[in-house]
Amino acid sequence: MSWRASVLTLFPGAFPGPLGQSLAGRALERGAWSLEARDIRAHGLGRHRSVDDTPFGGGAGMVMRPDVVDAALAEIADDRPGIFLTPRGAPLTQDLVRDLAAGPGVMLLCGRYEGIDQRVIEARGLREVSIGDYVLSGGELAAMVLLDACVRLLPGVMGAAESAEEESFSAGLLEYPHYTRPAEWQGRAVPDVLLSGNHGEIAAWRRAEAERITRERRPDLWAAHRSDMHGRAVATAPGAP
Amino acid sequence: MSWRASVLTLFPGAFPGPLGQSLAGRALERGAWSLEARDIRAHGLGRHRSVDDTPFGGGAGMVMRPDVVDAALAEIADDRPGIFLTPRGAPLTQDLVRDLAAGPGVMLLCGRYEGIDQRVIEARGLREVSIGDYVLSGGELAAMVLLDACVRLLPGVMGAAESAEEESFSAGLLEYPHYTRPAEWQGRAVPDVLLSGNHGEIAAWRRAEAERITRERRPDLWAAHRSDMHGRAVATAPGAP
Repeated sequence: MSWRASVLTLFPGAFPGPLGQSLAGRALERGAWSLEARDIRAHGLGRHRSVDDTPFGGGAGMVMRPDVVDAALAEIADDRPGIFLTPRGAPLTQDLVRDLAAGPGVMLLCGRYEGIDQRVIEARGLREVSIGDYVLSGGELAAMVLLDACVRLLPGVMGAAESAEEESFSAGLLEYPHYTRPAEWQGRAVPDVLLSGNHGEIAAWRRAEAERITRERRPDLWAAHRSDMHGRAVATAPGAP
Repeated sequence: MSWRASVLTLFPGAFPGPLGQSLAGRALERGAWSLEARDIRAHGLGRHRSVDDTPFGGGAGMVMRPDVVDAALAEIADDRPGIFLTPRGAPLTQDLVRDLAAGPGVMLLCGRYEGIDQRVIEARGLREVSIGDYVLSGGELAAMVLLDACVRLLPGVMGAAESAEEESFSAGLLEYPHYTRPAEWQGRAVPDVLLSGNHGEIAAWRRAEAERITRERRPDLWAAHRSDMHGRAVATAPGAP
């Protein structure tokens, strides 16, 4: 059974959108995964299919009603993890992406308006996930980002070419820089070592570059990488328990 | 002159995609911003319009050539900041979003394959930006995320309703939980304080919840918030220079 994605949204027409192209699109076409986008408004109340109301306690914006969202979730709920995409959530990481890709699929809830009533998040045990520390106009693009990241890890989706990209990031380091032909361009030469044919030196240079770039650009990742390396070194030290 | 976005991509057909819907889509329709997606392949070499080649130093994957990417950039270059979307980049933050939204627009370069030759990134002074610590199949969704985040901040795009959302995140805290009708749902009641009508208590509760959630979910943001608050307290202390 292929990996299944269900998305609850007020903009079902936005899907598959970019997910219908390229890697994810080809995988979708040949059934490596499935995608359904369902309109939350189908469960809206009254003649206007209203899905939201003013927030208790006052303030600007509208909040999506728990009963409406719950009815939409009830229709698709199964053993897949349910995720609400929100800047309040835990950060999406490549580890989480790997976990989700290894499972049966995902149910994604996209918010609009000010937010969603917290009770339905709790009642349904939804995991709150954020794709980054910025504010989007809704959860739809965040859902697409999560799906694209997961789908590329599904069996058979990536070729060997794309797989390699995974490795350096998996070690907790940013990638080393890439170079291709021409060897000299606008007076800029490719680093000599890459033309040397010495595989050991090339690997060492790439590792050093990955470390340098991580240190310079992402002190947070660098600190985590260092403590991870330290932990492994201790764990595998001769005589360690 | 409205805010202008140019995107260089191998998948121009993916645009505007989700950006044609909802808030960003309405703003696009009425000219609050403009979007052009240009095909890098138009500058490809030879009969097959080749844009990439094998990496110097070996390894899986293909790298986009500097001359091809440079030619694509040359066609759109002006005073707008140029950004290459890559997991190697500096993290996209709401501060950066605000800076970009306040400028003339952006030129975005979307990578595919293993990466892009580093020399063209340097020669063109492109800023490398990452939307999060996960790997996507390409830069297109990342570009859309950046654009959506910027466009909602353009003058007149958001209503008062949506503007409020900005505030709590801007203080470096995650948002407090939201509640709306019904006041009781499936045995779950809205927190009493929100029904009290006491605006001071409501504000205090929301602040405490925002702090609690930030502390629990994002120790990194919490630490930054604390040191920021400390800095401000010192700066505004009576008798401070």
